[in-house]
Amino acid sequence: MERKKKVAIIGAGPSGMAQMRAFESAMKQGEDVPEFVCFEKQSDWGGQWNYTWRTGVDEFGEPVHSSMYRNLWSNGPKEGLEFADYSFDEHFGRPISSYPPRTVLWEYIAGRLKQSDLRQHVRFETVVRFVNWDEDTQLFTVLSEHLPSQETRTETFDNIIVASGHFSFPNAPEVSGIESFPGIVHHAHDFRGAEGFADLDVLVVGASYSAEDIGSQAFKMGAKSVTASYRSRPMGYDWPKGFEERPLVERFDGDIAHFADGSTKRFDVVILCTGYVHKYPFLPTELALSGPNTVYPEGLYLGVAWDANPNLFYVGAQDQWFTFNMFDAQAWTVRDFIMGKTPIPVAAERAASIAEWSAKFDAISSEAESILFQGEYVRDLIDRSDYPDFSVEEAAQIFIQWKSDKAKDIMGYRDLTYRSVITGTRAAKHHTPWLEELDDSVERYLATDVEPEREARSA
Amino acid sequence: MERKKKVAIIGAGPSGMAQMRAFESAMKQGEDVPEFVCFEKQSDWGGQWNYTWRTGVDEFGEPVHSSMYRNLWSNGPKEGLEFADYSFDEHFGRPISSYPPRTVLWEYIAGRLKQSDLRQHVRFETVVRFVNWDEDTQLFTVLSEHLPSQETRTETFDNIIVASGHFSFPNAPEVSGIESFPGIVHHAHDFRGAEGFADLDVLVVGASYSAEDIGSQAFKMGAKSVTASYRSRPMGYDWPKGFEERPLVERFDGDIAHFADGSTKRFDVVILCTGYVHKYPFLPTELALSGPNTVYPEGLYLGVAWDANPNLFYVGAQDQWFTFNMFDAQAWTVRDFIMGKTPIPVAAERAASIAEWSAKFDAISSEAESILFQGEYVRDLIDRSDYPDFSVEEAAQIFIQWKSDKAKDIMGYRDLTYRSVITGTRAAKHHTPWLEELDDSVERYLATDVEPEREARSA
Repeated sequence: MERKKKVAIIGAGPSGMAQMRAFESAMKQGEDVPEFVCFEKQSDWGGQWNYTWRTGVDEFGEPVHSSMYRNLWSNGPKEGLEFADYSFDEHFGRPISSYPPRTVLWEYIAGRLKQSDLRQHVRFETVVRFVNWDEDTQLFTVLSEHLPSQETRTETFDNIIVASGHFSFPNAPEVSGIESFPGIVHHAHDFRGAEGFADLDVLVVGASYSAEDIGSQAFKMGAKSVTASYRSRPMGYDWPKGFEERPLVERFDGDIAHFADGSTKRFDVVILCTGYVHKYPFLPTELALSGPNTVYPEGLYLGVAWDANPNLFYVGAQDQWFTFNMFDAQAWTVRDFIMGKTPIPVAAERAASIAEWSAKFDAISSEAESILFQGEYVRDLIDRSDYPDFSVEEAAQIFIQWKSDKAKDIMGYRDLTYRSVITGTRAAKHHTPWLEELDDSVERYLATDVEPEREARSA
Repeated sequence: MERKKKVAIIGAGPSGMAQMRAFESAMKQGEDVPEFVCFEKQSDWGGQWNYTWRTGVDEFGEPVHSSMYRNLWSNGPKEGLEFADYSFDEHFGRPISSYPPRTVLWEYIAGRLKQSDLRQHVRFETVVRFVNWDEDTQLFTVLSEHLPSQETRTETFDNIIVASGHFSFPNAPEVSGIESFPGIVHHAHDFRGAEGFADLDVLVVGASYSAEDIGSQAFKMGAKSVTASYRSRPMGYDWPKGFEERPLVERFDGDIAHFADGSTKRFDVVILCTGYVHKYPFLPTELALSGPNTVYPEGLYLGVAWDANPNLFYVGAQDQWFTFNMFDAQAWTVRDFIMGKTPIPVAAERAASIAEWSAKFDAISSEAESILFQGEYVRDLIDRSDYPDFSVEEAAQIFIQWKSDKAKDIMGYRDLTYRSVITGTRAAKHHTPWLEELDDSVERYLATDVEPEREARSA
């Protein structure tokens, strides 16, 4: 009898949870799945969606994983991320809106695994310190630490699945003079809420999702002014009064920011919305993926298998239009590789596939094309495994529609609804417009006795 | 010919710098010193004294080391920490005040090494990921990562000297309701300055040095009110109007803090001044020192040699009255152990020494006794090596005097002066009282054309 394979999954966020779900799904069909252990440094699963008030390092001195803030609502329609094997309707028992707050999404992803016994596979509060590959034994050595006891432990595994995400380690460039800016300076990663920014002048540095959403939060919470500073081009939304975009902040002189167009403005708060970097402190150079953040990161066969050593896998390492459903498609694919249901092709064949996808990736010239590229990628994965089929193509169209809806009304787009590509259900119109809702709790969100607004707010 | 020993020093802060200085001192006397490498994750040396505006994680995603804030002035007299082999007079060429700002102290510690070629021994921006001890080879394996290139590297060493400090990893207990406190919540580690706290109500949680000094900073910078919350007993200083102490904050309800005496107060900002933990993420359990923070941590022979494996050393692992001068005394001692100038005694002898010191430690019943205990410890080390002798006893008396001076005037004690135990020089009265000085730069500090205050501010 062959020795049972041992698999280590690093991270129990949406990607790691998808991976466990994939193994569970095979198990339920009576297949003999490998032994798997999921290492999670937090005390609960959910990854980014596991909100913490802590910033910087956690209660054990480890870098805080989640970049989530209290009042975050999904910034993309939930119809683009719905699990094919666990619909929103199934979880909530009735239609909900298209842009739920974080607590609601957290309930949904945790809800899928609630009926399973997957929790027993997770070693919580356990950080992976280092992974080594032994060419002789063809095994990985994993050195981990149980944080509460500080006990370190060494084990071997046949496969490693890196599911630790890439929106946790801030990219925070130096700005001249920032060291003596007298107010609060944070990276978006450490932003927890804008309630304290009421009546303040807030600068968000950046022109991507963090700047857009944290700036909008500050606006919503009553900031005196919100200024977003862009390096190459403005977000260009039709911002409300009190929200403006300026070119790059080049230096600070005390609390005065100097912008590339020569203009200046005084600020109370600076939030660096300057993105995240790929960082895998537990991997040796030769196994570690590095930036930039794209829909087709280099070195991964089918976006999951580390080409230089395909015993190592990454789930969720791409820049993301598709999220939970893409992680599922990847997790099922990885499972099939590890279980030998799908053989991993030889190097030349992998190289050909990588070349083909790279060419498609290089040809992308718009956001819509980027969405379609990722749709095509997810479709390819789904066709390879027994993950329940769904219309990836319709989901891609929802993302394209979303981009257009957002461009029309940046403060109102979250009040719109879309149709599920899994169940066909049209999302419910929410009882309160996003801009007016200050209570983001699940209880309030799911409440049915709330007087709905008579008419939608005009942008 | 015997193979040259290889020594790894982890950290190039005051302790690691002292260790390099110790080796250099032997080298200058023509001795054959081991090969030594110092690993430093920051891009410069100075440890805590290497100020950064960054909070949380640094530009490479590593936990920020320094807990320093912009406006920090030494909170103990410099006469208690002066190097015996490099006086303040030698560095500055004239007497300076007793409580210099951080920039001035940084210049002093960096200045001592300026003439040397020790910098070439430091691998900057290089983090030690993990250390293993190999019983067979009697060598340590050190796995490190050069952060800018993400290159990992494995090397072996005969000795490890842990000089990474223990005021970098926050102890930050959960307080009920803190997750929805709407304003800024930070640990003291991430506090960078109180200028932004003008007109705000500030809560500092804690009753030790951080609470005392960050609370005082907030007061100095014009906070509307400062409240310090203590667990066991108040600091008890004669605080100025607008600064009060309350018992433990038991919970938050929105921005309202509820204290153990039933009182409540609304706050804009919460700073957790709840101390630090011993954390050595690069060490396996059996080599890692763990808390609490005391003047005689368990498991260290002479406070430096890891009793369970005396090939490993710690410098600066104690709670500290003495600082730079104690690190020197330790570094010289460690050097002599490693170079075999002093043999490391057998286990039974080490145990006897530990038992003797532990008994003295257990008998400490006051802060003055704690100071005297540490003075006796430093004296013992100095008598064992060729570190220049100085009156440790007088320095201890300065600390005792300092405690009393502080008790008399918490907002004014930094304006007092003491006499150097190295040169006998009386410190200069500074041109501006601490409470009135808003410019903490070296230039301003060293300026001689500043009109001195006519009379000291009354407390």
